[in-house]
Amino acid sequence: MTGRLRLDLAYDGAAFHGWAAQGGTDLRTVQGELEGWLARLLRRPAPLTCAGRTDAGVHARGQVAHIDTVPGEDPAEVAALLARRLPRALPADLVLRGVRVAPPGFDARFAAHWRRYAYRLTDATAPDPLVRGHVLRVPGPLDVPAMDAAGAALLGLHDFAAFCKHRDGATTIRTLLACTTCRPTDAAGAGPIEVTVRADAFCHSMVRSLVGALVDVGRGRRPPDWPASLLDSDGRAGAVTVLPPHGLVLEEVGYPPDDALAARVALARARRDPADLIPTEEQP
Amino acid sequence: MTGRLRLDLAYDGAAFHGWAAQGGTDLRTVQGELEGWLARLLRRPAPLTCAGRTDAGVHARGQVAHIDTVPGEDPAEVAALLARRLPRALPADLVLRGVRVAPPGFDARFAAHWRRYAYRLTDATAPDPLVRGHVLRVPGPLDVPAMDAAGAALLGLHDFAAFCKHRDGATTIRTLLACTTCRPTDAAGAGPIEVTVRADAFCHSMVRSLVGALVDVGRGRRPPDWPASLLDSDGRAGAVTVLPPHGLVLEEVGYPPDDALAARVALARARRDPADLIPTEEQP
Repeated sequence: MTGRLRLDLAYDGAAFHGWAAQGGTDLRTVQGELEGWLARLLRRPAPLTCAGRTDAGVHARGQVAHIDTVPGEDPAEVAALLARRLPRALPADLVLRGVRVAPPGFDARFAAHWRRYAYRLTDATAPDPLVRGHVLRVPGPLDVPAMDAAGAALLGLHDFAAFCKHRDGATTIRTLLACTTCRPTDAAGAGPIEVTVRADAFCHSMVRSLVGALVDVGRGRRPPDWPASLLDSDGRAGAVTVLPPHGLVLEEVGYPPDDALAARVALARARRDPADLIPTEEQP
Repeated sequence: MTGRLRLDLAYDGAAFHGWAAQGGTDLRTVQGELEGWLARLLRRPAPLTCAGRTDAGVHARGQVAHIDTVPGEDPAEVAALLARRLPRALPADLVLRGVRVAPPGFDARFAAHWRRYAYRLTDATAPDPLVRGHVLRVPGPLDVPAMDAAGAALLGLHDFAAFCKHRDGATTIRTLLACTTCRPTDAAGAGPIEVTVRADAFCHSMVRSLVGALVDVGRGRRPPDWPASLLDSDGRAGAVTVLPPHGLVLEEVGYPPDDALAARVALARARRDPADLIPTEEQP
């Protein structure tokens, strides 16, 4: 009996060179760290597939990945073994939130309905030093309602080439499902400004570019309709600032109900362009 | 005209060997870092007095300190100079929240009515890795209502010797004004458990010892009346665990209204034992 296990993960990206293992290098990556421990615990290679390949320095609270079991392994037993031993093995900046046998048809990458990221920033003149590892400081004050309005104008199916790092043969057409900016207040006073971005998928550096454009709106350097004016253009807009990675967190990945997983995978695979399906050094 | 300036400070204690400058060593301290910059900006030594001398690794969001101006300086001009130049000079883990001319009679240390600390901990099986620098992870589950009840039994004027590191000639009698434990829930789910402790003053390692005793109650290792049973004893209780510093934050220092400052200082100086008033290498 073979099967598939779903792993839910959180990590502080500061000391990782991103998710993707980089063959032939000594760079510490989330995938490399995890696959190393999985191989030790399972006594065999266990390649991981994840929902969102985060860049160097990007954090995650809601990363999802899968591994397949091999003939001779009982998936439930493997899940129990990992649940017991992996948390103790992992370093403090990498947390296993859960591991369980995945439902039939599950694929961490291709079954995902959407990915939700949050980018946190502060325009406070004296920002809280305890959260500076995941909150970007920007000169203020930021016009948060203007940022929120500019984000709303980006929703829907568009070519986000202006906000993406170009990759030959890869499409930059995505469906943006949510893009909100709010200034939450917590019990202790004002928390950081949160930009929440949700889409079916993202291309490289897309969230950091989108939020970079919104910040220019928030600072009054660009009108609120400027980010939307860049949509459906041919290539990357040089005027768009890519914000640093440390403000970004992959918060959640959404999947359809179990009985719709297989249909979702078929649809996602068919929609993606061929280049996306060829194994690269980024996603073996 | 001479005067006194009040500085409000926040810092991430991880990379500091506490507040107090340690003469003759290369240890990085908050006081040493600040006094170095003050001397450069003011072109003279500017010794700092603070409200709460935090230990190595302890954080602050609400530290208060003062410096005195010297003849020939205009206090308002010095405050404006520091407000303009200090924030740009300071490293990312040390934040100037404000600087202003202090009212007559103000003394960061002796005018303080109370100090409020928060100790944050989590009993989650998969704790958020992004806040691990200021939230202690403990095996759970913690019985938070039992911890809260045990804290309430400690309130009032007591000899806290059982919870203090002994220092010759120094009193360990303090008035505990608040000691609450709660499990707040934020929008994103459950935040860390917060123990809030407020007292007229604290002796060395007192908060970390008090919370250590409460955690033993929370884990069911001790009954809720155990911490209070240690009050008014002669010396340090060996059974009390001193928790690590990184969960502790000096959140706020309370001062009386301006017209009551001088009376408060006279009272505080009279109440403290003589050893506390002799300049030491810890507090010049």
